[in-house]
Amino acid sequence: MEELERVYRHIDEHLDEHIERVRKLIQQPSISQTGEGVIECAEMLKDWLLDLGCSHVELAEPEYFWPIIYGEYNAGAEKTLIIYGMYDVQPVEPELWDYPPFEARVVERPPFKRVLIGRGAINTKGPMAAFLNAFESIQQAAGELPVNLIFVFEGEEERGSVSMPKFVRDYEQRLKRADGVYFPICSQDRNGLARPSLGSEGILYIELETNGALWGRGPTQFGVHGGLKRILDSPAWRHIKMLSTLVSDDGNKVEIEGWYDDIVVPTEEDLRLLREGYRKSTPAVEVFDPEILKETLKVKCFKYDLEKPEDILREMLFSTSFNLDGIWGGWTGPGTKTLLPHKVVSKHNIRFVPKQDIDDLFRKIRAHLDKHGYKDVALRKLAGYPWALVDYKNPVAESLYDVFEEFGVRYTIYPPVANPVLTSPAWPAYVFAGEPLKLPIAGGALGHGGLAHSPNEYIVIEGCEAKYGYIHGLDGVEKSMASVLYHFAER
Amino acid sequence: MEELERVYRHIDEHLDEHIERVRKLIQQPSISQTGEGVIECAEMLKDWLLDLGCSHVELAEPEYFWPIIYGEYNAGAEKTLIIYGMYDVQPVEPELWDYPPFEARVVERPPFKRVLIGRGAINTKGPMAAFLNAFESIQQAAGELPVNLIFVFEGEEERGSVSMPKFVRDYEQRLKRADGVYFPICSQDRNGLARPSLGSEGILYIELETNGALWGRGPTQFGVHGGLKRILDSPAWRHIKMLSTLVSDDGNKVEIEGWYDDIVVPTEEDLRLLREGYRKSTPAVEVFDPEILKETLKVKCFKYDLEKPEDILREMLFSTSFNLDGIWGGWTGPGTKTLLPHKVVSKHNIRFVPKQDIDDLFRKIRAHLDKHGYKDVALRKLAGYPWALVDYKNPVAESLYDVFEEFGVRYTIYPPVANPVLTSPAWPAYVFAGEPLKLPIAGGALGHGGLAHSPNEYIVIEGCEAKYGYIHGLDGVEKSMASVLYHFAER
Repeated sequence: MEELERVYRHIDEHLDEHIERVRKLIQQPSISQTGEGVIECAEMLKDWLLDLGCSHVELAEPEYFWPIIYGEYNAGAEKTLIIYGMYDVQPVEPELWDYPPFEARVVERPPFKRVLIGRGAINTKGPMAAFLNAFESIQQAAGELPVNLIFVFEGEEERGSVSMPKFVRDYEQRLKRADGVYFPICSQDRNGLARPSLGSEGILYIELETNGALWGRGPTQFGVHGGLKRILDSPAWRHIKMLSTLVSDDGNKVEIEGWYDDIVVPTEEDLRLLREGYRKSTPAVEVFDPEILKETLKVKCFKYDLEKPEDILREMLFSTSFNLDGIWGGWTGPGTKTLLPHKVVSKHNIRFVPKQDIDDLFRKIRAHLDKHGYKDVALRKLAGYPWALVDYKNPVAESLYDVFEEFGVRYTIYPPVANPVLTSPAWPAYVFAGEPLKLPIAGGALGHGGLAHSPNEYIVIEGCEAKYGYIHGLDGVEKSMASVLYHFAER
Repeated sequence: MEELERVYRHIDEHLDEHIERVRKLIQQPSISQTGEGVIECAEMLKDWLLDLGCSHVELAEPEYFWPIIYGEYNAGAEKTLIIYGMYDVQPVEPELWDYPPFEARVVERPPFKRVLIGRGAINTKGPMAAFLNAFESIQQAAGELPVNLIFVFEGEEERGSVSMPKFVRDYEQRLKRADGVYFPICSQDRNGLARPSLGSEGILYIELETNGALWGRGPTQFGVHGGLKRILDSPAWRHIKMLSTLVSDDGNKVEIEGWYDDIVVPTEEDLRLLREGYRKSTPAVEVFDPEILKETLKVKCFKYDLEKPEDILREMLFSTSFNLDGIWGGWTGPGTKTLLPHKVVSKHNIRFVPKQDIDDLFRKIRAHLDKHGYKDVALRKLAGYPWALVDYKNPVAESLYDVFEEFGVRYTIYPPVANPVLTSPAWPAYVFAGEPLKLPIAGGALGHGGLAHSPNEYIVIEGCEAKYGYIHGLDGVEKSMASVLYHFAER
């Protein structure tokens, strides 16, 4: 496509300006957990969309915790693509950074020739700015975009995207005009392998509390002298006994009645994709290296002593888990304070898969507690969202594969229920893939970054060769994003 | 006894001076957990003993963590009594006190006419100074003491009396000359009922840790992303499952093999004492009011729904318990951080009774863990000491009953295995009552104080009438301590 070639040249010729625009967006803090700079960042993006000729640009506030930026761009094209983005970032601990996290300094970091270091560099203000740069380059070099766009940039992804379901309901009529959803992020890992983002597992995060006040036994308002265990019941022991009923002795099987009933994955097609791949993709079983994962996580073995990549991938992609994320109660300081605590609390994140239902799982936990005599144990839902079951052959995803193949980049498609550990970052795919929109979705592009949520978060500005091929710099990120639009327009 | 009458008169006539001496001792901080003022306080007591004519006075340091003050007073008498005391105190949070904790201010506090407020007022520098006042009054009014004394004042009771066993071994030849041990403290509770201190339960304080590094499974060095529970074992769930094997479903029975094997209490005599008392004492079943204890502790019921005072007392005095004092692991902050922790730790204090052996119990816990497949779970002993089985008819105790009866004070004798909740303060009775000394011991006197370990700790300086009779002030404390020595000399 000659038009696309002109766009690529424009990107090459204006790369320094584009880097500066990426830096400017990252330099504006937007920490959704503290609120620092969030509104200012939203205003900056709103102005940017207006400068690019978008209409109906608005900060959908104050209905939502932080504004969701909505905007439309009418190219007079046949198809319309929703561009999802998140402009909020995680908090920073500046003392742990090599450079100030909101300076967005560009430095050499072997093996990469140049990286940009800053909070949000990869997750995901860097790729977001890259997309807007690509957008502008298409306008400048080709005159008009091949697709219409609807922008949805949320500011509370790091707080669990809690307003997104309501936003989708509120904007349903406008959003349903779209033919697909594209999440512009970088797909290449440290080896240069691209891993597109498709669906996601479901997450339910709960808190359990056993409390003497609710139980009616043992201390009810405060911890009492530990010697009184001789005559009093213990809410703390009750919590242990209650938790113990939830999982098997090895901690790996959920013992709640009906927990596994509705699981429909992996399908034969899921397994075929794992083993054989699709189009020119490299099958997951070929690139997944258990030894590297062990080394990264500092673990000696996987559960059930699984060793074959396919067996481990099956668990990672298609199994459900009930984790104990945290527990606390009583005296947790140094020494030997004797205390009979009146309550213990534990936190649990649950991962689930099609077609387990989040509300049904919650009810099953409650029913299990009740049935085992723990009616008094408090069960609180802290967060959660459904899985997103995405057809990996959908037109947005196919456009992305087109681009990987156009650039000769190796890629691996994980089945629809991908796990953030394999294909990050997490995003609320379900709000677009599920009811009522049921849109085809995909996320990805060339490029690489890392240390999301950690100090020295980075995005590669100038790339290098790696195990599976060339890791692209910012120019590749922008070119591939532009290319996705063209490929999608033609499908 | 006319001699004793002269002593009482001397106390009455010099009460103001005596109060000032009590204040002076309390004004000198001696916080064994921080070290503040401990050495200065030890020096002050050493000088006081020298002023009173003691010999062989020494600070047994630096062999012990804080000095143990040793001193002898030879009255040329037939019998010798060890006077045990603790001169260290708990830390203070000054902002919670009505008066500076080391000012030792004397104020009116209804229903008491006057109390002295200060750290150590009742636990136990107030009673210790009162004893030394009584000692001097005997010298002044009667010329000589009726018994020889050996002083043992330790400075680390609030740190678990860790040096006392070694001290007893080191000083065994000198200590074994004694005929008994007397711990000068105040026995009257808020109702005016006196509860002498005799033996004590045993305490074993342990920590249990399940850690992926020791287990060889799951995360080993740091917590990893909670989504990885799908493929990794969980040390946290393992800790829950391990803990769950330790106690029955109601949390009240210890499920460790042989745990109850060596228990020999209550004996028929223990139960008779509970039900009938001894001499003029009021039986425990008559004065123990479950409803008042419920109200104090804010509990609605006791374990097994026990309601009869005797049933509750039997558990409180003669049962063994395995408490869960504290537990922590993973993410304990706000929100929904997803974490698969690499370790969980819990703390447990165990109360045990004759003739369960502390080392044997520790071994049984280890054996239980091993037998149930938890060889990797770390078991650490943080503290502990044996029970002290004391004959309630021993001559020191009988002398104390003599005194209660002389002053017409109602008293209740709890069987030998008394619980600190019933007869405080705790003290290392076992080092005197057990091998190798096996001495008769008792603690107590008239007088009352409260809020040990808490802000506004106090001792009553000028008493008042209460439910079971008159609560004595400092004069009564000192007179009764002097009287104990005379009664003991005559037995």
